[in-house]
Amino acid sequence: MNKIITIGRQFGSGGREFGRRLADELGIAYYDKEIIKAIAEHTALSEDYVKQIVEKKPHAVYPVNIGQSFFFADSYYMRQVQEVYATQSQIIEELAEKSDCVIVGRCADHILRNRKPHRIFVYADMEARVARCFAESSGTDISEKQMIKQISRVDKNRAEYYSYYTGKKWGDISNYDLCINTTGVEIAKIVPPLAKIF
Amino acid sequence: MNKIITIGRQFGSGGREFGRRLADELGIAYYDKEIIKAIAEHTALSEDYVKQIVEKKPHAVYPVNIGQSFFFADSYYMRQVQEVYATQSQIIEELAEKSDCVIVGRCADHILRNRKPHRIFVYADMEARVARCFAESSGTDISEKQMIKQISRVDKNRAEYYSYYTGKKWGDISNYDLCINTTGVEIAKIVPPLAKIF
Repeated sequence: MNKIITIGRQFGSGGREFGRRLADELGIAYYDKEIIKAIAEHTALSEDYVKQIVEKKPHAVYPVNIGQSFFFADSYYMRQVQEVYATQSQIIEELAEKSDCVIVGRCADHILRNRKPHRIFVYADMEARVARCFAESSGTDISEKQMIKQISRVDKNRAEYYSYYTGKKWGDISNYDLCINTTGVEIAKIVPPLAKIF
Repeated sequence: MNKIITIGRQFGSGGREFGRRLADELGIAYYDKEIIKAIAEHTALSEDYVKQIVEKKPHAVYPVNIGQSFFFADSYYMRQVQEVYATQSQIIEELAEKSDCVIVGRCADHILRNRKPHRIFVYADMEARVARCFAESSGTDISEKQMIKQISRVDKNRAEYYSYYTGKKWGDISNYDLCINTTGVEIAKIVPPLAKIF
């Protein structure tokens, strides 16, 4: 069976950098935004719309102004949500079947649970996450308070999405094999030794 | 400042083995039960009594049959509890001052927070912990159900004790730098690479 590493991550914790470096270190495939693109191609929905769907738990993006009866709107929207999740699951299964890989987000730890993936969760203190977000979005004019609000909102959505599809608590140790706090840590330095345990 | 590694651990997860191997790998001191012994020596209380105090949050071991008025019993007992915790904190500070070290349990992550220790939490699935406990207590005649009850009781006490003295949630990722699930893992194999990140 292929070596599969899934990465859950708090927004701004460097989970994506961690995942990419880990994949490079191990010389295996890395999937993140590619999955959204593949879902869009499979479903004929736009990438932006798919992104919206996969970043919130269903009812949170209920399209109240769709101009149809509530029942119809609800049922139409929920069909799309179900289609996107089913497509996402299928794509993730195909990627895991194809080769060893690192997959970021997308409930991959749950979708691939029968393959016993190495489940990693990357997190950091809010202060460190704010600093990373500002460093990665140079030129932004939002305040620190607004940045904290934005980070908290993204994480709330991730937690609700994860809980909705898996029935488990996002960021709870029992759902992972390794949880890594990147506060004050140079990710490039810790990845090579950590890669040896997989 | 010395390199300090603190280890919180679920009962039966192999946290002690992990800590000892990590200390050996790094060639630094290791403290676990030695702390109880040192507290007993400092306070003139028996090791067993100290152990009872440091494994439960104060009110849980309230000595109702002490044969004094409730008020007096309460105040006498609470003074002992406070003395034990103060002595424990002082001993842990002294150990951290003396040399690089690994300290298991005892809220050391909180007591030494100003020294910025590397805070590790070791845990495992209940099934793995039950198997480890049976393997380590050969000849025991308790049932699996009883073993689960015993493990859960110890962990409940640890969680309450930690929460009482630190105001934080035991086993919550935000209080640690690294959380390691030892389910299905050979601890001897993962310690050498992990030691390189400290």
